[in-house]
Amino acid sequence: MTIRDWQEVVAEKRAEVASKLPQEWKLPSTILENVSPNSNINVIDIPRTCGLLSDKELDITEKYDGVALLEKIASKELSSSEVTLAFCKRAAIAHQVTNCLTEMFFDVAVERAKFLDDYLEKEGKPIGPLHGLPISIKDSFKIKGIPSTIGYVSFIAHGPATSNSALVDILLSLGAVLYVKTNIPQTLMTADSDNNVFGKVMKNPHKLSLTAGGSSGGEGALVAMRGSVIGVGTDIAGSIRIPALCCGTFGFKPTTNRIPYGGQAAPSKAGSPGIVACAGPLTNSPRDARLFLENVINSKPWDLDYAVVAVPWQVIPLKKPLAIGIISQDPSVPVTPPVLRSIQSAAEKLATAGHSVTTLTHFPSFKELSDLSWSYFDLDNEGTGFKHIHASGEPMVSSVKMLYSPPPEGRRVRVLEEVFEMNQKRNQAKADWNQIFVDGKFDILIAPGNASTALPHDTYGQAPYTVMWNLVDYPACVIPYLRADKSVDVASSDLPTYDPEAIHGAPCSIQIVGRHMQDEALMNAVEIVAGVLDA
Amino acid sequence: MTIRDWQEVVAEKRAEVASKLPQEWKLPSTILENVSPNSNINVIDIPRTCGLLSDKELDITEKYDGVALLEKIASKELSSSEVTLAFCKRAAIAHQVTNCLTEMFFDVAVERAKFLDDYLEKEGKPIGPLHGLPISIKDSFKIKGIPSTIGYVSFIAHGPATSNSALVDILLSLGAVLYVKTNIPQTLMTADSDNNVFGKVMKNPHKLSLTAGGSSGGEGALVAMRGSVIGVGTDIAGSIRIPALCCGTFGFKPTTNRIPYGGQAAPSKAGSPGIVACAGPLTNSPRDARLFLENVINSKPWDLDYAVVAVPWQVIPLKKPLAIGIISQDPSVPVTPPVLRSIQSAAEKLATAGHSVTTLTHFPSFKELSDLSWSYFDLDNEGTGFKHIHASGEPMVSSVKMLYSPPPEGRRVRVLEEVFEMNQKRNQAKADWNQIFVDGKFDILIAPGNASTALPHDTYGQAPYTVMWNLVDYPACVIPYLRADKSVDVASSDLPTYDPEAIHGAPCSIQIVGRHMQDEALMNAVEIVAGVLDA
Repeated sequence: MTIRDWQEVVAEKRAEVASKLPQEWKLPSTILENVSPNSNINVIDIPRTCGLLSDKELDITEKYDGVALLEKIASKELSSSEVTLAFCKRAAIAHQVTNCLTEMFFDVAVERAKFLDDYLEKEGKPIGPLHGLPISIKDSFKIKGIPSTIGYVSFIAHGPATSNSALVDILLSLGAVLYVKTNIPQTLMTADSDNNVFGKVMKNPHKLSLTAGGSSGGEGALVAMRGSVIGVGTDIAGSIRIPALCCGTFGFKPTTNRIPYGGQAAPSKAGSPGIVACAGPLTNSPRDARLFLENVINSKPWDLDYAVVAVPWQVIPLKKPLAIGIISQDPSVPVTPPVLRSIQSAAEKLATAGHSVTTLTHFPSFKELSDLSWSYFDLDNEGTGFKHIHASGEPMVSSVKMLYSPPPEGRRVRVLEEVFEMNQKRNQAKADWNQIFVDGKFDILIAPGNASTALPHDTYGQAPYTVMWNLVDYPACVIPYLRADKSVDVASSDLPTYDPEAIHGAPCSIQIVGRHMQDEALMNAVEIVAGVLDA
Repeated sequence: MTIRDWQEVVAEKRAEVASKLPQEWKLPSTILENVSPNSNINVIDIPRTCGLLSDKELDITEKYDGVALLEKIASKELSSSEVTLAFCKRAAIAHQVTNCLTEMFFDVAVERAKFLDDYLEKEGKPIGPLHGLPISIKDSFKIKGIPSTIGYVSFIAHGPATSNSALVDILLSLGAVLYVKTNIPQTLMTADSDNNVFGKVMKNPHKLSLTAGGSSGGEGALVAMRGSVIGVGTDIAGSIRIPALCCGTFGFKPTTNRIPYGGQAAPSKAGSPGIVACAGPLTNSPRDARLFLENVINSKPWDLDYAVVAVPWQVIPLKKPLAIGIISQDPSVPVTPPVLRSIQSAAEKLATAGHSVTTLTHFPSFKELSDLSWSYFDLDNEGTGFKHIHASGEPMVSSVKMLYSPPPEGRRVRVLEEVFEMNQKRNQAKADWNQIFVDGKFDILIAPGNASTALPHDTYGQAPYTVMWNLVDYPACVIPYLRADKSVDVASSDLPTYDPEAIHGAPCSIQIVGRHMQDEALMNAVEIVAGVLDA
């Protein structure tokens, strides 16, 4: 393909995508003209102020979480059709200001909602525990009849998917309504959801000049704007938690192979002996994360995806008070003042609420183990992800260039011996963290989700505070808490890159970490901690 | 080290080991003079006929399984001291005819049993669910103060272990009495438990001219001779199940990382991205396997071994009738007449008992996937296992020479790209087997444990029917059933290597296979099937 070719292919793709946005849901130019990645504005309230949503649609999308909506649909107080339409419209609005969507299939969703309403009417009971609830999903998941380009121009030629990902089959069997797929970065390996297929840079609804995070960036922006109550992301280095912490939502990365990941469009070479990715929810309430995890895990997903661990959701009583280990920061990866303030404030509130809080001073190096993690992401000597880019002639996006510099062609060939050594280090890290939990009798750790809040576009870089938990395969959840405030978060001389003005108003967060395979205990703790923090 | 050096080191080691065998437990020369790897005799009854065990000791070691002994110890009908002494003596006898032990520490065991008896007397209740029960364990597990040479002459210099393996700590905390470690092959990667440290070839008690299997060969012979009720083995290609099927015991290989494997003496390079080994029990009754699995898994082993999956033993109701898929044989790995007869007879009995039995005709190739598995075992370009051999100057034993021919020095260097391809094939195999279970709604599969029964020494070779389940990480259990009978098992012209005379009298078996992580459901099925087969 020549460069002209790929641009033509993209133009056609974008026209096709644009055609899915109903004319009557388009925002007025008075709003759109202010929407730019250089703008400092907050667009969170646009759905409420733009006039496109009725009062009832505003109620549906703002007053309830997924659990509440399911109750109202099951009791016929609301129909799935009206709930679905409200979220379709709100998602369309969110998309116009943040570029959070890839594929919109509102017609399919409306038809499905109608089917579910009829079912409920006829059968007198919901079809499943997610009956009628709209759920958004990352572009990498395959839905029959819908493309999964995952932001590679060369993947446009793949056309619509001919099969469903296992998770898609499960969500549908549980009664969910799928209506949109969400935006991602080229390669799925950066925190800036930018690619050449879907064009404009993805923006953070809290401040357009900031990144919405990635790789599940579309979900972060969409859920934050309440264009979705449950968004499905995936995470191999932080890709659920980074958008969550950038956009101020909950983001729960489970232990690998508990939520089915199989059957997705793959950005890189299959069969890597490295870190395994996982799927999980971004939500606005802890109990919506539970709703998703519990129902998916109890649907026997191992029948549809061989990789899933055949363990039902374990019912574990809530444990109070919690024993909490606090990691304020690792000196090897210093955090910015608002991040530190959030952790310290959370620790104080939790202590006041009667939980046991212990600050950890000795733990494995986030810097070293982040480097180790990235060496796992760089095992493919073929550079398959880059081949997918080069196949169309499209250029690398800025964040990919930044993370993969010097370019992959210049990298040294990786050899098998390294994998043995890397695995030994990784196992040591697993042993060390396990020992920290055991010695401290901790239920959870609380740590930063990142050194900073959301950052200006294309500056996020590596993600030591999230990738650590992928490396050791611990479940971890971002809880939104506080906001960056230039009047409080005074710049520290240790952090020359900290710009209080640029990030003023950005959501802050904490990250709660549980033990390997103890997702249930972590979920309990997330609810307790969120309750204390009123998150 | 010169060759003379290693022989001197070994001579000293053997003298030390021999000194642990009490004079009064030595078998008369009239018995020992018939003990040879060329002899066709069965020595199973030697403990009963040799006159060294009292009637009560014979009762203790022959009449009960572990569950029954625990009841009798807890009710003080028997003391741990007398039970322990009986098994120490019987193990010592078994060792003299099969060479099944490596380390004997009868004095430590007797002292521990005394402590437990005193504890029970004083506290009025057992110290734990395995209170007072003698358990034997493979040489690779570390016990403080006892060597773990695992059959490498170069490891003799390591001296006594300074820490316990996680499983050893757990067994002790549950109340078990450890008294012997058991024999293994050089490299732990062959089915013939032969090495230069412990000298004489390990022999099958049912017929000394046959192999006892490996790599947990000592456990197979010891448990078959009722010198132990529960023997702990490990399995990466069949090393629990091969001794079980050779010696006529149960051998349960769990899903990896359910039973703690950590802290063992390692025969090869750490950090391999290949197949993971696991630990599990060899027993004479299904419920003793359950006793071991359930209690170890419910002891929170993940606190002691970071790799263990933090999932308690799941209580699953017995399902009857079972839906069973039968694999009589894979034409790519033809089985001998007694093996085929055992599978077919078991299938008939199970059908008669009301279980649903379906013969499978399409499934992944055991030959191809065995080759794939062995390519995982050969990823270490350094040949660490061979370095351990060469370090002392000792020669390779016959079975190692046979399996690793041409010698490792001549092998080609393996590269990282292969691992990606191998993992893709492995994942496809996992998907294929999962689909077979789902499509057939099978609870279990029944398949051969090997193409043959126990074979003459140093002829076992690869193990396609066992290694398959390591490759896809499914739990699998060998159930002893029937015996090779030259009058019934007429030679087939397809199998020129089948020698009905050589294997006449050898135990036969079936292998029951469950789904990944569904060890509990497999355990239930093993009890049901063993009940039907009266195994």
